[in-house]
Amino acid sequence: MTGQERSEEKSECVSLSPMMETVPALPESERVCVFGTGDLGRSLGLRLLQAGYGVVFGSRRPHSSSRLPHGAQVLGHAAAAQSAHLIFIAVQREHYDFLVPLANQLKGKVLVDLSNNLRKNQYPEANAEYLQSLVPGAEVVKGFNTLSAWSLQNGPSDANRQVYICGESAEAKQAVIAVATKLGFSALDRGFLSVARELEDFPLQLFPQWRLPLRIAIGLSAAFFFYLLIRDIIYAYVTQGKDISFRIMVSLANKVCPIVSLIMLSLCYLPGVLASFLQLYRGTKYRRFPDWLDRWMLCRKQLGLLALGFAFLHVLYTLIIPIRYYVRFKATDRTVSVIRENRTTEFDTTTAWRGDSYLSLGILGFGLYVLLGITSLPSVSNALSWREFSFVQSKLGHLTLLLCTAHTYLYGWNRFLSASTYKWYTPPGYMLCLVLPSVVLLLKLLLITPCVDRTITRIRQGWERGADHRNPKDSQPLIP
Amino acid sequence: MTGQERSEEKSECVSLSPMMETVPALPESERVCVFGTGDLGRSLGLRLLQAGYGVVFGSRRPHSSSRLPHGAQVLGHAAAAQSAHLIFIAVQREHYDFLVPLANQLKGKVLVDLSNNLRKNQYPEANAEYLQSLVPGAEVVKGFNTLSAWSLQNGPSDANRQVYICGESAEAKQAVIAVATKLGFSALDRGFLSVARELEDFPLQLFPQWRLPLRIAIGLSAAFFFYLLIRDIIYAYVTQGKDISFRIMVSLANKVCPIVSLIMLSLCYLPGVLASFLQLYRGTKYRRFPDWLDRWMLCRKQLGLLALGFAFLHVLYTLIIPIRYYVRFKATDRTVSVIRENRTTEFDTTTAWRGDSYLSLGILGFGLYVLLGITSLPSVSNALSWREFSFVQSKLGHLTLLLCTAHTYLYGWNRFLSASTYKWYTPPGYMLCLVLPSVVLLLKLLLITPCVDRTITRIRQGWERGADHRNPKDSQPLIP
Amino acid sequence: MTGQERSEEKSECVSLSPMMETVPALPESERVCVFGTGDLGRSLGLRLLQAGYGVVFGSRRPHSSSRLPHGAQVLGHAAAAQSAHLIFIAVQREHYDFLVPLANQLKGKVLVDLSNNLRKNQYPEANAEYLQSLVPGAEVVKGFNTLSAWSLQNGPSDANRQVYICGESAEAKQAVIAVATKLGFSALDRGFLSVARELEDFPLQLFPQWRLPLRIAIGLSAAFFFYLLIRDIIYAYVTQGKDISFRIMVSLANKVCPIVSLIMLSLCYLPGVLASFLQLYRGTKYRRFPDWLDRWMLCRKQLGLLALGFAFLHVLYTLIIPIRYYVRFKATDRTVSVIRENRTTEFDTTTAWRGDSYLSLGILGFGLYVLLGITSLPSVSNALSWREFSFVQSKLGHLTLLLCTAHTYLYGWNRFLSASTYKWYTPPGYMLCLVLPSVVLLLKLLLITPCVDRTITRIRQGWERGADHRNPKDSQPLIP
Repeated sequence: MTGQERSEEKSECVSLSPMMETVPALPESERVCVFGTGDLGRSLGLRLLQAGYGVVFGSRRPHSSSRLPHGAQVLGHAAAAQSAHLIFIAVQREHYDFLVPLANQLKGKVLVDLSNNLRKNQYPEANAEYLQSLVPGAEVVKGFNTLSAWSLQNGPSDANRQVYICGESAEAKQAVIAVATKLGFSALDRGFLSVARELEDFPLQLFPQWRLPLRIAIGLSAAFFFYLLIRDIIYAYVTQGKDISFRIMVSLANKVCPIVSLIMLSLCYLPGVLASFLQLYRGTKYRRFPDWLDRWMLCRKQLGLLALGFAFLHVLYTLIIPIRYYVRFKATDRTVSVIRENRTTEFDTTTAWRGDSYLSLGILGFGLYVLLGITSLPSVSNALSWREFSFVQSKLGHLTLLLCTAHTYLYGWNRFLSASTYKWYTPPGYMLCLVLPSVVLLLKLLLITPCVDRTITRIRQGWERGADHRNPKDSQPLIP
Repeated sequence: MTGQERSEEKSECVSLSPMMETVPALPESERVCVFGTGDLGRSLGLRLLQAGYGVVFGSRRPHSSSRLPHGAQVLGHAAAAQSAHLIFIAVQREHYDFLVPLANQLKGKVLVDLSNNLRKNQYPEANAEYLQSLVPGAEVVKGFNTLSAWSLQNGPSDANRQVYICGESAEAKQAVIAVATKLGFSALDRGFLSVARELEDFPLQLFPQWRLPLRIAIGLSAAFFFYLLIRDIIYAYVTQGKDISFRIMVSLANKVCPIVSLIMLSLCYLPGVLASFLQLYRGTKYRRFPDWLDRWMLCRKQLGLLALGFAFLHVLYTLIIPIRYYVRFKATDRTVSVIRENRTTEFDTTTAWRGDSYLSLGILGFGLYVLLGITSLPSVSNALSWREFSFVQSKLGHLTLLLCTAHTYLYGWNRFLSASTYKWYTPPGYMLCLVLPSVVLLLKLLLITPCVDRTITRIRQGWERGADHRNPKDSQPLIP
Repeated sequence: MTGQERSEEKSECVSLSPMMETVPALPESERVCVFGTGDLGRSLGLRLLQAGYGVVFGSRRPHSSSRLPHGAQVLGHAAAAQSAHLIFIAVQREHYDFLVPLANQLKGKVLVDLSNNLRKNQYPEANAEYLQSLVPGAEVVKGFNTLSAWSLQNGPSDANRQVYICGESAEAKQAVIAVATKLGFSALDRGFLSVARELEDFPLQLFPQWRLPLRIAIGLSAAFFFYLLIRDIIYAYVTQGKDISFRIMVSLANKVCPIVSLIMLSLCYLPGVLASFLQLYRGTKYRRFPDWLDRWMLCRKQLGLLALGFAFLHVLYTLIIPIRYYVRFKATDRTVSVIRENRTTEFDTTTAWRGDSYLSLGILGFGLYVLLGITSLPSVSNALSWREFSFVQSKLGHLTLLLCTAHTYLYGWNRFLSASTYKWYTPPGYMLCLVLPSVVLLLKLLLITPCVDRTITRIRQGWERGADHRNPKDSQPLIP
């Protein structure tokens, strides 16, 4: 026994005496220990006290620990450890080594590692794994770290009801789940301690899967904005001297939004088509896709939802058209000129057909778009079987793409052939944005022709080109 | 010991020797066995290896099994079974009988039945129950069958995170849940092995609850489409020789959508009203409803959501009206004729009142419609208490129906009485669609009159007409 | 043994004889007992029988119990208790004392308390806690009370799949979960028996968190409705004798909706700002907020969602403007007067800029509004980390408020300065509604200035003004 431990024992004796009166009132299962008297420890302790637990703080200097929640006891680490089965470690990872000399007292105890890091990959191993290696005799459970200090203190609220835990021992996890439940949280067991790194990274993440799609959306929006700014507004100013800059706010926005939406929707279905062709070319499904394709496929949902967002804005921008001052002015102007010039206007059935079809396809496309968005909600997609989900996302998804592409073609109509469309020899935005969806739809059409479809299906069931064809293996072997 | 078993033993010896070097490195809980080396077995084995498990394949011909994931061992079935506590059966049901001679080696093991069938009710009992009957000494757990092979190989994604399992033994299920969690899935215990049939049917289903409502929606849409096609477009062509076929795309669609929406919304509330009247007539709640009524009541949610979809399309079709070429042309035309004929137009306050009320009721009705749709989302309805859910779906639902019906009556206004409305002696579509909601609302009105309401409430609390009235039993007996 | 118990024993003998033939067929885990033969008990018993359980009813008069589900047995309480491990208590709390003499037979049994009360706080302690105090030897589990009798009888449906249970003993709860699962419900363990009161209050609640926000919404709507009614319609009638009452339905509604929406959105962000200033003023985060502020902060989500609802109505009311009879009449009128008076109209670029910016800001604001609403869905917010949720709700939320406020300022434009705006010396509604959001945005601007932000951050990390500054404690103590 070293001198330091001895002095700690002494300090325990001092602080134990006032505690003795209250601690025995609660059974061990109702008493928990918190190591660390910083903000996190104090917040957690307060919450535990409110939930009816007896709380014993472990501190290096139990006598001088101030500002602890009313009703808690403070002991030296060794004595505190002995007073409860469950010990929350609310201490920074850098100081975990103070636990090494306490190995005896911690034997068999459940240690809950609450720690987070400041950035990803700060340390070679997860904090909880490091803690377990320091105190091999204890059962380390990672947990509660995904909560903000605010909800630790104030109890669960909307985004903070769920607590993720992981650890090797089922009983230890059960004990932690019991405490979490009593505090009002719903705890989810995520598996063994090897998941700890993932849990520690969780609070640091800020929409990691949305970054690439967001960058694509912003890049496309900026590119098309400047392209159309030059073609529409600067062109009019240079060639005719007219200032139509006010069009930026609505007309231009209402061109950028549908263009970006359609391109992103096709970007959402392109990787699936590419993957099928890669499997066809390789003649097997047992080789991994290149990394860029894998990453692309993993962000399809985000690409689609951003596309839906742009489509939503496009719908709103379109619907407010008749309210605009410019549009109302033009309408009056047109009528006035018809009267003054004594012209007669003839109703054109073809234009009516084209215009109404254009609008109708857009409406149906948007309706399906919204349906795809709703089935992407976690609670809805969880309720679908795999067959249902792939029906909606693949069949209805490609139908949406088809409707929206046809909508855009009808928008162009016969202007594709007119030379005046190509100001400064540049094609208008809607033509540019039609390239990608047309390619995706053509490739998809190729894939669903019977002969290609048959090969793809066989490959997906495990068939390999060049392999033993006499004994084709299906998804489950015919002979075990 | 038969000759076949003997030869298998020998083959085991051969393949055991290279394995011996690696297998002891992992404890038994970290080693799993996979029977079957087909696509499913290989995909699963690969995923298990990636998650850190030691994988032992069981095969009839361990020497000739090729293309297995790198790092896995292959043994004969008997030896493979002995090497792990958990055995995945990735073999078709037709070949389960090879497991019968292994009864000794499988005693006490956990067998995970992954199999699916090609269609519902293919076999008299569930595959997992059949497996259990073949190997009574093992603990059969049904699971993982709801996953696509793609997600078994590539890990969980959106619609594939949830794994359902069932089985008799709690410990066996716990072991399977542990593996599922480590693979990244969240496993949900659905109960005893008798649920296996339901789990095996799950991947085969394609929106079973949506079929009837979808058929009703398609049937109604087609019927009203042709009815209105004849009344509007063909009538105009026959009687006046005018080609107004362009109206199909928007005008006709915008008549079919609200009609179908309103009918389906009333179909959604009709069965509840009928059920109440049936209980009133029978004087008891203890007799089952007829089957057709039961089935109808079970698809009310789907009927309502489809009605919302049609209402959504109706809103979009209405809002684009002023953008249409035809509408803009007519507006100019009207103004021009006012000028040329030097007419004066008088502002009609009644028309303004009627039009604005019509629009306002439609907007409020649609707002409530959307609210009903949102509370149908699984995550929202799960958070509601039963009282809250029935308040929203019943009270607000009938209010929605009332608003939408009033909206349609205002649309008709005084045209109900005008003879010119009845082309070819047929009533217009909006009149036809008003029949059902009016009936539902009238019946509901009857039901909430105090005297009927009191009887219904008593019946729902267990009272029966003709039963012992001296001792009326409430929902909970007064005397135990 | 009292005379009453004796007679009961005798009655058991009578009823036991016919039972003996069937009961032994099922193991004890497959047999359950239901005390109480009222509606609730009968419904539950029927459902249990359908799920394959053997059901034994416990009744005071086993011979005269009629109308019980076919297949169930009826025994005296004592005999029924002995026949199963799990006993459902479908009896009103007032009669629980009949269980006291059965203490011996109930020892070690699991008693499921299904009861609900008629109103909150009807009794000093929860029914389940009272039951536990009466029969200390049994393991009481609260559960199934959140279900309607309808779903108990007919099995789970949408809002009734989830069953909450609580109790002291983990094994007892496990047994109840097993039964719930077999009946098709998904049971959620909510913790110890002290939660029972909460579970008993759950079925009684009717949107408790929505009451205050709804009252605010209704109050604001009514106030602004009458204010605008006087200013717009009555003013026009009194001063010019014009009847423009038809404007109530759309124009007035479309003024009230955006005003209430903007005020409620700022009410949603005001408490957070106030709380920050309070922390700044107090120099610590360790003092509780006043009760009114706490309550206000807890209903921010509801305030925001109601604001979104009003914004949604505002969008619809705005988009139907060009369809209105009044608007179409005015447009024709304007054109006609231009012609007849031979005026020329000049296109005003500033007006075009202002109008388009106004519309564009409104659209973007509404888009963000909808995004905030979507992230409030339980399943979406559960999938977000705390950092992500606070990014969306705080950063994007304040941006939404900024966009909507700017939208309203642009609506006012230079009318702020014109005297004719102030009819009867009252400001128009949009000016009144701008006060609160402007204040919130100004205060928020103050809070994000670097020096204030630094102090707030330190306070939130546990720093206290006036505390020991030499050893500033971070969120986790530097020295354990």
